[in-house]
Amino acid sequence: MYLARACELAARGIGNTSPNPPVGAVLVRDGVTIGEGFHHRRGDPHAEVEALRAAGGDAAGATLYVSLEPCDHDGRTPPCAPAIVAAGVVRVVIGALDPNPKTDARGVERLRAAGVAVDVVNDPEALRLIEPFARAVTSPRPFVTLKLAASLDGHVAPAPEPFWLTGPEARSFVRELRAAHDAVLVGAGTITADDPLLTVRPPYARLVPYRRAVICDGRAVPAESRVFLQADGYAPTLVLAAGPRARFGQLERVAEVAYIGEEDAPSVDLEAALVVVRERGVTSVLCEGGPRLAARLLAAGLVDRLEWLVAPRLLAGPHAVPALGRALAVDQAMAVDRVEHLGDDLRISARPRAAVSNPRGAA
Amino acid sequence: MYLARACELAARGIGNTSPNPPVGAVLVRDGVTIGEGFHHRRGDPHAEVEALRAAGGDAAGATLYVSLEPCDHDGRTPPCAPAIVAAGVVRVVIGALDPNPKTDARGVERLRAAGVAVDVVNDPEALRLIEPFARAVTSPRPFVTLKLAASLDGHVAPAPEPFWLTGPEARSFVRELRAAHDAVLVGAGTITADDPLLTVRPPYARLVPYRRAVICDGRAVPAESRVFLQADGYAPTLVLAAGPRARFGQLERVAEVAYIGEEDAPSVDLEAALVVVRERGVTSVLCEGGPRLAARLLAAGLVDRLEWLVAPRLLAGPHAVPALGRALAVDQAMAVDRVEHLGDDLRISARPRAAVSNPRGAA
Repeated sequence: MYLARACELAARGIGNTSPNPPVGAVLVRDGVTIGEGFHHRRGDPHAEVEALRAAGGDAAGATLYVSLEPCDHDGRTPPCAPAIVAAGVVRVVIGALDPNPKTDARGVERLRAAGVAVDVVNDPEALRLIEPFARAVTSPRPFVTLKLAASLDGHVAPAPEPFWLTGPEARSFVRELRAAHDAVLVGAGTITADDPLLTVRPPYARLVPYRRAVICDGRAVPAESRVFLQADGYAPTLVLAAGPRARFGQLERVAEVAYIGEEDAPSVDLEAALVVVRERGVTSVLCEGGPRLAARLLAAGLVDRLEWLVAPRLLAGPHAVPALGRALAVDQAMAVDRVEHLGDDLRISARPRAAVSNPRGAA
Repeated sequence: MYLARACELAARGIGNTSPNPPVGAVLVRDGVTIGEGFHHRRGDPHAEVEALRAAGGDAAGATLYVSLEPCDHDGRTPPCAPAIVAAGVVRVVIGALDPNPKTDARGVERLRAAGVAVDVVNDPEALRLIEPFARAVTSPRPFVTLKLAASLDGHVAPAPEPFWLTGPEARSFVRELRAAHDAVLVGAGTITADDPLLTVRPPYARLVPYRRAVICDGRAVPAESRVFLQADGYAPTLVLAAGPRARFGQLERVAEVAYIGEEDAPSVDLEAALVVVRERGVTSVLCEGGPRLAARLLAAGLVDRLEWLVAPRLLAGPHAVPALGRALAVDQAMAVDRVEHLGDDLRISARPRAAVSNPRGAA
């Protein structure tokens, strides 16, 4: 129960803690919560420290419930493990181990060496909270969530009109999803077809700059596209381009253009493009692209989490467009780990079966 | 709680009560269950009578919970409403009203006229139990359930191999589904491709004869197909044929061949074919046909219930076969009313939004 509360608190930081993971903590003594905290944003105090401060001098003899293993290394803030020991906490219940290979489990070791009892729960919710972090600290690319919306039978409308397919609750969920990632990624086709802003919409907001990224295979999108409109809270829009440099001259005036591969590359190498995105400090990306980009990401094994939104409709026929492009062969076993109703629609959340989420925790 | 129990009892009769609906009843006095019953099969006592018998002489002052409005007309068995009154039951809680236009709500009227308190709940589960019955008594065709199994993105394997797509729990559910209907329907393509037996498999069994039906558009299937093997408990396999009669001579020796339309009809009129099936005493049909038959039934508005089984897999590509055929345009809004996990797979149960389930009850 306290661990679930810690995870709930952690979730409040989602979207603002990058490159740190969201973390929540609850301090309990004699069955009474004496302090709570979460990591608000990079540079702010860690969750454990916030909970200890909230408890004032009362932490001696208490149990700390924390969604992620407390750190024992100096970063932007002092390490948490020594602070926990110093406060007299006698037991720490940890939702998930720190997946960062650089930390080498020193948090747990330090606590145990100081005589603090430590339980590691490998809680599914706690592991889920650090999925993006686990990807970002173990590979050179960001965590990739692929969002797709389709009819029950896997089609989008013949004339794409996403606002007709899913209802308001599902669309609100997509806004939440967008705000929960450091960046949003689409293909040039989405820009030319829909000219979206791709901004974070109320009630969601971000405390740290947001990135919008566009894949351009050999051809630029119009420089007047709305995705290039600048606003407070946004890093320059990133164009990930393949092909002759001359074609992107106009875009260099309105966006940051990163060239992937040689001038004669016919299309963007998506893995290389994601590494470029990661180098900009982005640890998680939401792909809101169309069927073609979705299939390319999947075929390349670059999807960590699939958010499949199902509209309660059947939409087959000669002109039906498959939600997942058919140019590339995709055969990917998935593990569905969350199904929920969003109004009349369904959300099916899944991850590739082969994906490694936490090298030290349970999958 | 007692009504849920009545529905649970009713479900035990599913598959054997046709042309009657499955019905369950619980008799309660002073908070104690004094009798339970359900309709086992056509010709057997009704659920209410079974519950009254189980209670012996103790029914005076009791409340009867029954999934469907008690009958007040003479059929194969004496009417239930007078028996309930005679037993001294003081209150009847009814899950769903009898949708049969011939009965004209006389059950409720008779009970109220005799001073019995009557509550009609319009319980979703009770309404669901009588969906097939409601269709069969209000139209000349049987209730049609369409079962489809697909990957998340709506495809079946390039080389159809259904046993690879969904897991054992989903396949067991399909066996249960088959036993719950009076007949199974497939297209000729399924017979030539898979040569299935289409029998009811253990642990499921039926007390009344089961029908297997095959749609043949202008061309016969091989007479040695396993679907024509006769066994105890099976009515002759029904071939619903369109086209020149001479082509079906061989099948007439192993099956009952019903010709739909004139000799020059290029394909079977599915609505007319279903009426022929209904005339054989079949009130519910499970379609286990392929993508083409599924799309034809949907496009013709002949599907009452969709059982969409989702395997946790993505299976797109140039050779991927859509679970729903694309030759016909289908645009059907659905209402999803049940989602459950079947092992690693998902079952999404839905009905067309326009479908009328019970003209007298809540939709």
